Amino acid sequence: MNTISSPHLEFRQNELLAELRPLLPEEALLWEPEDTIPYECDGLAAYRQRPMAVALPQTEDQVIQILKICHQLKVPVVPRGAGTGLSGGAMPIQNGLVLSLAKFKKILEINPLARTATVQPGVRNLAISEAVAQHGLYYAPDPSSQIACTIGGNVSENSGGVHCLKYGLTIHNVLRIRAILITGEVVEFGGLAPDSPGLDLFSVFIGSEGMLAVVTEVTVKLVPKPALAKVIMASFDDIEKGGNAVADIIAAGIIPAGLEMMDQPATVAVESFVHAGYDLNAATILLCESDGTPEEVAEEIEKMSAVLQKSGATRLQVSESEAERLRFWSGRKNAFPAAGRVSPDYYCMDGTIPRRKIAELLKRIKAMEAKYQLGCMNVFHAGDGNMHPLILFNGADHQEWLRAEAFGSDILETCVELGGTITGEHGVGIEKINSMCVQFGEKERAMFWGIKESFDPGRLLNPDKAIPTLNRCADYGAMRISNGILPHPELERF
Amino acid sequence: MNTISSPHLEFRQNELLAELRPLLPEEALLWEPEDTIPYECDGLAAYRQRPMAVALPQTEDQVIQILKICHQLKVPVVPRGAGTGLSGGAMPIQNGLVLSLAKFKKILEINPLARTATVQPGVRNLAISEAVAQHGLYYAPDPSSQIACTIGGNVSENSGGVHCLKYGLTIHNVLRIRAILITGEVVEFGGLAPDSPGLDLFSVFIGSEGMLAVVTEVTVKLVPKPALAKVIMASFDDIEKGGNAVADIIAAGIIPAGLEMMDQPATVAVESFVHAGYDLNAATILLCESDGTPEEVAEEIEKMSAVLQKSGATRLQVSESEAERLRFWSGRKNAFPAAGRVSPDYYCMDGTIPRRKIAELLKRIKAMEAKYQLGCMNVFHAGDGNMHPLILFNGADHQEWLRAEAFGSDILETCVELGGTITGEHGVGIEKINSMCVQFGEKERAMFWGIKESFDPGRLLNPDKAIPTLNRCADYGAMRISNGILPHPELERF
Repeated sequence: MNTISSPHLEFRQNELLAELRPLLPEEALLWEPEDTIPYECDGLAAYRQRPMAVALPQTEDQVIQILKICHQLKVPVVPRGAGTGLSGGAMPIQNGLVLSLAKFKKILEINPLARTATVQPGVRNLAISEAVAQHGLYYAPDPSSQIACTIGGNVSENSGGVHCLKYGLTIHNVLRIRAILITGEVVEFGGLAPDSPGLDLFSVFIGSEGMLAVVTEVTVKLVPKPALAKVIMASFDDIEKGGNAVADIIAAGIIPAGLEMMDQPATVAVESFVHAGYDLNAATILLCESDGTPEEVAEEIEKMSAVLQKSGATRLQVSESEAERLRFWSGRKNAFPAAGRVSPDYYCMDGTIPRRKIAELLKRIKAMEAKYQLGCMNVFHAGDGNMHPLILFNGADHQEWLRAEAFGSDILETCVELGGTITGEHGVGIEKINSMCVQFGEKERAMFWGIKESFDPGRLLNPDKAIPTLNRCADYGAMRISNGILPHPELERF
Repeated sequence: MNTISSPHLEFRQNELLAELRPLLPEEALLWEPEDTIPYECDGLAAYRQRPMAVALPQTEDQVIQILKICHQLKVPVVPRGAGTGLSGGAMPIQNGLVLSLAKFKKILEINPLARTATVQPGVRNLAISEAVAQHGLYYAPDPSSQIACTIGGNVSENSGGVHCLKYGLTIHNVLRIRAILITGEVVEFGGLAPDSPGLDLFSVFIGSEGMLAVVTEVTVKLVPKPALAKVIMASFDDIEKGGNAVADIIAAGIIPAGLEMMDQPATVAVESFVHAGYDLNAATILLCESDGTPEEVAEEIEKMSAVLQKSGATRLQVSESEAERLRFWSGRKNAFPAAGRVSPDYYCMDGTIPRRKIAELLKRIKAMEAKYQLGCMNVFHAGDGNMHPLILFNGADHQEWLRAEAFGSDILETCVELGGTITGEHGVGIEKINSMCVQFGEKERAMFWGIKESFDPGRLLNPDKAIPTLNRCADYGAMRISNGILPHPELERF
């Protein structure tokens, strides 16, 4: 049995393997179908494709040689971290190579005085915090997948997390990147000095979804562990009141360490799974965290409580111990697996909107539930307006999946209409590539391509991800129907 | 009398004026030498050039039409704000148009709830804070020129200021930009939502020195005025101890609202000018500011004092009143004019280095003073390692000016060697364009050009600034002598 479906592909595969074999130990080059199956998708499991081969280099020099070979043979390359991404950014390409950075697991340097750590891209997000904990420091961005996801993937997606409202996204916590271009040349972006002359290649690189270069080293900023953290659980009997309370807290000049929102379907699903102690009678709950010195926390908890009460909270509960605080968060952090327990499948959206529009978006999602005949749980980073609606469906029913896809596009394009964006932290990948045609005009898309080609003129690095071609957008525009939804050709009227 | 030195230029000028006249009122189009003289340089007065013409449009539509005309006639365009820039970024081009945004002075919207203001690019930095003061808010970045410099210029240079250690550079305080491409097309970057899909065009645009598009609208973030601020003046009998104290404060987990350093030549020059109350016996002084609630300030002042003492401070003085605090800062803010009082001319550098290297750089600058036979005052944003050495010279002596130029390049290239950059906040402009060849490799410079051309394929917007051509760098490399300094052909051995 072979993955390869055509004589031409088989020829290309043999050609590639012949070049790569002398470079890599036997176990670091996979091409048999049984070996490449684990790589056929990332966290967006609905989209799958087997690659020609998977390479697992262990040294930067191997990465350089692999890229040079692919460049010469014009073989597309899909870089891959832990494969926890939710937008299909690491989905393979049939005639391409998957370049896994899984073996780049070394922590190269920890400098507690400068508060930096330099690590290889395959180091897990949480492993950085574990390695520096002895110095009272940690790495702030904390995506829900932080046990598994790698810093290289975080850089590629500009990942956030529940604490990024106060501590920033990956871009605010990374100082320097070392990466390899498709030609095998080494480049470095950023540094320890503030700002940088010339155009900001560093910011362009962060969140570029593997399309510009392959990361081989990351220097991150570390922050001191706060002495204390407490969280308020606030209940609301009306989802709009909860949405407005979020905007009220920020408008009051408070920047909570975390400000998360979950609606009743989400708390109910989670509670039976992790017993977080949520108020199941509330239409929605907010989790509002404060961290700092004990005095700062006491003052901020008091200020937030006053705002929440004024905004119509029906009940407030402040964590009394670290164990209780972690229990409150455990529910939020397990919301995605909890969705998997109450529904055969779920489809996670990642749109952002200005905070003042939270209540309006929630109302419109409610109406969409009826329209698409599917349920939706709402869990999100409310403080920075990053929504994660989880659309519940049964993938065994093909029509349900098609309706879920249309429901998702409808949510994202509503986010754009309300002044937001189609993705906050999960990336565009393959999943939201059509919605990029709605988010950006032709001029902006042409600029994306201009930048892409200054790094990768042959468009070999992670092609067909994140930036739609002008043709794709023209087709998408022609196919969209009046309500803004792209009808999949097989989707029946609903 | 005419500025135009050749029949070809005169023809081009007439051609341009004929197209622009129907668009603009008479007083908004200047071309007579007596009218264009005020535009022949910016704050870097050593470099001068008169343009073919100066246009002062008042509406976005006029900007669009002007750019379309220049695009069609292939006339280079130099955008200009208040002309306070220190790197020659707004210096005209002989066969080009200066496009002044001085008439774009409207504050378009203030939203105290969302804490944002939308303004035109010609609005002065300080005017934003004045307009929102009634809401208890202000715009944080505060370059020393903030009375005069405009937000459009701040965006183009990614300006900082004494408070940017805690509050960030322009890029951290601007949310959205509206701008016009050389083709006349309108583009918008950024927005109110966190992050943005696709490549980060917003970050590329901030600090792009007028090379990508002409800004017509800026939405900035506002922050609440802190209840209290206090500043510690700390004296050191040794400049290296002072440099290391800066790194010690940051390493102790404190992020002061401001952390500035001045050496003895600077305090002496300033004191006779503004009577700030500086310790003139100290080899160097630090100004360390704390802001927040009275409790936060008390706690932070105590923590900083302890670190400063441990780092060898010989004297600490904490401001006792708001008047005293402003007096301490008045010296720092007037350091540049003070240099102008003790020396016929001064040349201000803007290199950055990692904080741990401050003491080493200061030692090396000391040695350069002897080498180039010129004095130097050191004044800088120590907290983020952004140095402003002021080289003192007499411009009437051409050899002194040439030595000052060589001294400046030597400092900047030493910054690069120590892991820093050639500019922190003043931009590259025309002044540091050769040093860009040292800062970046050929590959990075090619990427800059790739990005530049995705915005402006004809290279008409502010050409010959900020990004050196590959040829220029080849020439510069060949001319540099062994100690890293480019000898001006007229510079005599020293």
